[in-house]
Amino acid sequence: MTVFHQVFKVQSDYRPTFDDVTDQVAEILAESGILNGILVVFSQHTTCSVLIQEASDDLNYWGTDFLMQDLVNALEKIIPTCQTEGQYLHPGPEHIKAALGREELPSWSLNTDAHLRSVIMGRSVTIPVVDGEMILGEFGRIYFADFDQVRARQRNVRVQIIGE
Amino acid sequence: MTVFHQVFKVQSDYRPTFDDVTDQVAEILAESGILNGILVVFSQHTTCSVLIQEASDDLNYWGTDFLMQDLVNALEKIIPTCQTEGQYLHPGPEHIKAALGREELPSWSLNTDAHLRSVIMGRSVTIPVVDGEMILGEFGRIYFADFDQVRARQRNVRVQIIGE
Amino acid sequence: MTVFHQVFKVQSDYRPTFDDVTDQVAEILAESGILNGILVVFSQHTTCSVLIQEASDDLNYWGTDFLMQDLVNALEKIIPTCQTEGQYLHPGPEHIKAALGREELPSWSLNTDAHLRSVIMGRSVTIPVVDGEMILGEFGRIYFADFDQVRARQRNVRVQIIGE
Repeated sequence: MTVFHQVFKVQSDYRPTFDDVTDQVAEILAESGILNGILVVFSQHTTCSVLIQEASDDLNYWGTDFLMQDLVNALEKIIPTCQTEGQYLHPGPEHIKAALGREELPSWSLNTDAHLRSVIMGRSVTIPVVDGEMILGEFGRIYFADFDQVRARQRNVRVQIIGE
Repeated sequence: MTVFHQVFKVQSDYRPTFDDVTDQVAEILAESGILNGILVVFSQHTTCSVLIQEASDDLNYWGTDFLMQDLVNALEKIIPTCQTEGQYLHPGPEHIKAALGREELPSWSLNTDAHLRSVIMGRSVTIPVVDGEMILGEFGRIYFADFDQVRARQRNVRVQIIGE
Repeated sequence: MTVFHQVFKVQSDYRPTFDDVTDQVAEILAESGILNGILVVFSQHTTCSVLIQEASDDLNYWGTDFLMQDLVNALEKIIPTCQTEGQYLHPGPEHIKAALGREELPSWSLNTDAHLRSVIMGRSVTIPVVDGEMILGEFGRIYFADFDQVRARQRNVRVQIIGE
């Protein structure tokens, strides 16, 4: 049995971003030499998710896949974009105190919407590997989603493969 | 270590369907001979999900478990059933062009609701296998959910087991 | 390859509870001796979930993390707390008959909200293990969530680790 781990980066923006990382993940699988097993694409960030979705073919003015913008619009109905403190319980006073201790701007904690949206969507996907290929069907693509709208950042995409 | 893969089919309908596939998955586990490890039930379709839920005992007029219809009703509040183009961003003009190139009817792309509902519910479940049994508690059943309402189709249910 | 399984208990309450189980899971990982692989934290209960989220630092009057109460408040918009029979389809007459046969009070079945909330949030998390550590980033904590508000109970948290 082999366990193979690799990490790569994506760059987020001041709005929800959805990076198609299918090709990078497929390259890591090829490099692992694993032919049969399971592959996990994982976010270590608590405002990010990993999703499997069809590509939309169409993009909006911001370059976001239509289906992903439709998803954001649906989530907005129950988790509106956080505009100011007091809109949600989080961030509370203790959290802001801790954030200041990490030299973070208080406004960086106004990402409650991103924490909630991302935990609903999930932190990872688990994909069967059969004969050296991920089972993604005709249309499945792997997306790394960053729901955090308060900062543009580099994010880590983790891939863990186990098999033989 | 053994990696065991198998696929079987379920038949969907012109409304959301929820097939209890627990018995088929248990048979595949028995056939694999794996006693301890993890088992993944996976949808390769981007309008389908795999869920663990209690069986409702009661069914509605369409034969749908009460709990599953309650779930559809809850999702309907933020992701209404797609009735026509323009209701969501997706499908856009490029997507329809691509679909026509695959000899699909344009109406088949009016499954935006299904893409969004299914990605929220997730594409797979991962279940511990201990002493030859899936850990599902007293009430857990595995359902393959097809949220696509525009076509009745055969769908693939993938099972990947890794362990010893 | 090693497969390592362990179970421990958490105590729920008459409202949604979110237990930070990160330290218990880390101890189980250390005990397993597995250095590289994947770790699954799993709920066998169909009104419970396992989530990865940042700790809020702040707690509400009930002792619930602010971010978790914000999550409950968001879910409440589409899945209101179940107060009485007839609010949802479930529980139906057949379910109540079966519950009475198990000597359950009928009111214990008024947990439809918990079945729906928990299935949206998911039954498990899957975490890469690298060099003996779970990859949880700077802020990730593992929570066992019990959405069932009709009974206080002991719940099983299952940990399955596979690797070497």
